[in-house]
Amino acid sequence: MSREPGRVLNIKEEIEKANSTAVDRMMESEPHWVDMDIALKAIPGMKDRMLLHAGPPIEYERASGPLRGALIGAVIYEGWASNAEEADRLLRRGDIVIEPTHHHDSVGPMAGVISPSMPVYVLSDLRYGGKAYSNMNEGIGRVLRYGVYDPDVIERLRWMERVLYPVLRDAIRDMVREQGKGLNIKSLIAQALHMGDECHNRHVAATSILIKELAPYIFATGHDRSMVREAYSFIYRNTFTALNIVMAAAKLMTMAAHNIKYSTIVTTMSRNGTEFGIRVSGLGDEWFTAPAPIPKGVWFPGYSEKDANPDIGDSAITETAGFGGFAMAAAPAIVSWVGGSVEFAVEITRRMYGITYAKHKYFTIPYLDMQGTPVGMDIRKVVATGITPTINTGIAHREPNRGQIGAGIVTMPIEPFKKALRRFAEVYGI
Amino acid sequence: MSREPGRVLNIKEEIEKANSTAVDRMMESEPHWVDMDIALKAIPGMKDRMLLHAGPPIEYERASGPLRGALIGAVIYEGWASNAEEADRLLRRGDIVIEPTHHHDSVGPMAGVISPSMPVYVLSDLRYGGKAYSNMNEGIGRVLRYGVYDPDVIERLRWMERVLYPVLRDAIRDMVREQGKGLNIKSLIAQALHMGDECHNRHVAATSILIKELAPYIFATGHDRSMVREAYSFIYRNTFTALNIVMAAAKLMTMAAHNIKYSTIVTTMSRNGTEFGIRVSGLGDEWFTAPAPIPKGVWFPGYSEKDANPDIGDSAITETAGFGGFAMAAAPAIVSWVGGSVEFAVEITRRMYGITYAKHKYFTIPYLDMQGTPVGMDIRKVVATGITPTINTGIAHREPNRGQIGAGIVTMPIEPFKKALRRFAEVYGI
Repeated sequence: MSREPGRVLNIKEEIEKANSTAVDRMMESEPHWVDMDIALKAIPGMKDRMLLHAGPPIEYERASGPLRGALIGAVIYEGWASNAEEADRLLRRGDIVIEPTHHHDSVGPMAGVISPSMPVYVLSDLRYGGKAYSNMNEGIGRVLRYGVYDPDVIERLRWMERVLYPVLRDAIRDMVREQGKGLNIKSLIAQALHMGDECHNRHVAATSILIKELAPYIFATGHDRSMVREAYSFIYRNTFTALNIVMAAAKLMTMAAHNIKYSTIVTTMSRNGTEFGIRVSGLGDEWFTAPAPIPKGVWFPGYSEKDANPDIGDSAITETAGFGGFAMAAAPAIVSWVGGSVEFAVEITRRMYGITYAKHKYFTIPYLDMQGTPVGMDIRKVVATGITPTINTGIAHREPNRGQIGAGIVTMPIEPFKKALRRFAEVYGI
Repeated sequence: MSREPGRVLNIKEEIEKANSTAVDRMMESEPHWVDMDIALKAIPGMKDRMLLHAGPPIEYERASGPLRGALIGAVIYEGWASNAEEADRLLRRGDIVIEPTHHHDSVGPMAGVISPSMPVYVLSDLRYGGKAYSNMNEGIGRVLRYGVYDPDVIERLRWMERVLYPVLRDAIRDMVREQGKGLNIKSLIAQALHMGDECHNRHVAATSILIKELAPYIFATGHDRSMVREAYSFIYRNTFTALNIVMAAAKLMTMAAHNIKYSTIVTTMSRNGTEFGIRVSGLGDEWFTAPAPIPKGVWFPGYSEKDANPDIGDSAITETAGFGGFAMAAAPAIVSWVGGSVEFAVEITRRMYGITYAKHKYFTIPYLDMQGTPVGMDIRKVVATGITPTINTGIAHREPNRGQIGAGIVTMPIEPFKKALRRFAEVYGI
């Protein structure tokens, strides 16, 4: 932008400058996985008798089945109640505080429930200095994040705390000690996008890279050999292992872009199973919401759309940071998991260029001749074009304690973007 | 084919039946990496003072620079000579026997030189019972297989024998002991094709999968910890680690398809740096050759086509088995390494359907909506269409001791296919 020195920018120029800064920071952020710890100790503002959940704020009574199921499971896991009824009572009475993960620099897939005793990944932005957190991935099917609280789910969470966590924690700490800075997750995502992942619902390559990087440290932790093999075997079998770490990295990228005055770039996009909500860089911590849509799915045998809960999870942080569904063209194999055709997957990526600020400098798509992924949703472009973000997603049964019933593709409602734009006009006096 | 019982098939029907059998066996072969050993002990017909080389048979005098360089290096590595001049003299005098790898159920990339003391991968076809062999990958640049015989190359080969080999050998033996059957390389290739590799010149995913599978065994071998870390670090840094194992797997697939009476399917396709040659299932072990072409390349800084040796290496066994260049559409990121555009890469795959018998049952291309790769080159189709196989390839400097100068794409001459078809007509009295 060439302009006379000292001239006051007009509002359009201010927005352009702010968006350029925001998206630049989103792309230049350097998220590294640097540690693991227990949520109560690590996560800012985390308290005893507090549970975090995905998406915009919601009261327990209005929460969807899978979110209620996951909260119940977490209460049992924490030992605050010994069964579902008791847990439900505590939650209804408000004895347990529930707050959005996003209010605590955290993210979690699906229900996204993080409880005080849970081990969490700690990621650090080596460029801009933030920290972000996510829980550990349990695999697919009947798991807490899909709202299941059966004893085997609770036992798996305890096993993760007892076996998986100490092994991975000691491994990443050894890596940090030896290499000085932990695992570069931006680089991991960039590589995985060249290996058929889009890093939201496909983490086959990302998890392989993670394992390749971590293996020497995992097998040198000094823990009992069978314990190490158990831990290794779990992350080896669970191709979603990388998801939560990648989400925390995306959270750091979007945090780096947040709170830029005048910026119309979306820095949070998430769903709590009832509502879909966004936050915008130049509009602070206010949420703009609308009812969450139900995804178009590929259903597990025996299930259909009528069993599906509205969309849920913080994992749309991947699209917010310029990959996931926005990079579907990088992951043609994903259509067998989330549905649609390869052509449609490519079309989704192409369409997202219409509502984003830039092509990513570091995340590129081989099939589009190494074009950068669409990054930095601009609420003005969404409202002007009527194109809303399309993401891919896991699908939970709408009742508690039922679990995952499919995966699919979902296009978000436009209302939150319109609300945000109206608020933007008020705040900045347009 | 419905026909009256007992009716004698006409020649066309015989060929169809034979080709169906050949390609079916190629696809149904089950190559597993089951062991490692020293070439002299493992490879059938391997002898002291014998060196194997890539491609059709050739005398030392007619060998290209990189092949001569690699043979010289192997003589020094074996301790048969202490310098290049002495080694050259021994080779010229015929004191060292040189024979094609393919005559010993073996394959090697580029010069493909295997000497008696070299450790080799042992692969076994768990379906049809064959065994095939390949040497270990040294990485890229100045390495033996590109014709370099400098002391650092020899020292690396000795390090591989001393450090890398025992670690990998013990790891694969432990895996076989524990799992009963070694590492399924067909499955590894199928996965890698969904992760942006075509498994000839891109093995980023294949090597990651290999490492993920092998890591628990590598770190449990009981060798000195720093030795294990050295070995791990080498395969971790060398994304071509999987190439040689994958080539031996392709060799087994094509061996399973070989020697089917009446079959016009190509079961060997290789280059020795001077000539390109093929062998055909129904024509036994006869080679049909023509001068090897010079690839169109992406050149390392300072080099150009005038420095390039004609195409060399057994690695075209990957295309012979239905992947590599034939699966370019699965690996859009490869164009930065071998040149061309993504569109061209897809076009190569599409064109190869015109000269192949089938779409692969197990190797599929996500970007082509999970279509099987083109598999089973039919010499009749090559001659009828004038389309010859296009493969991707590494490029060696035409002088000995210079090394890799690029990578590229090369389309093979038609003469060997015409010669083979003429011989087929003679042999089968058409």
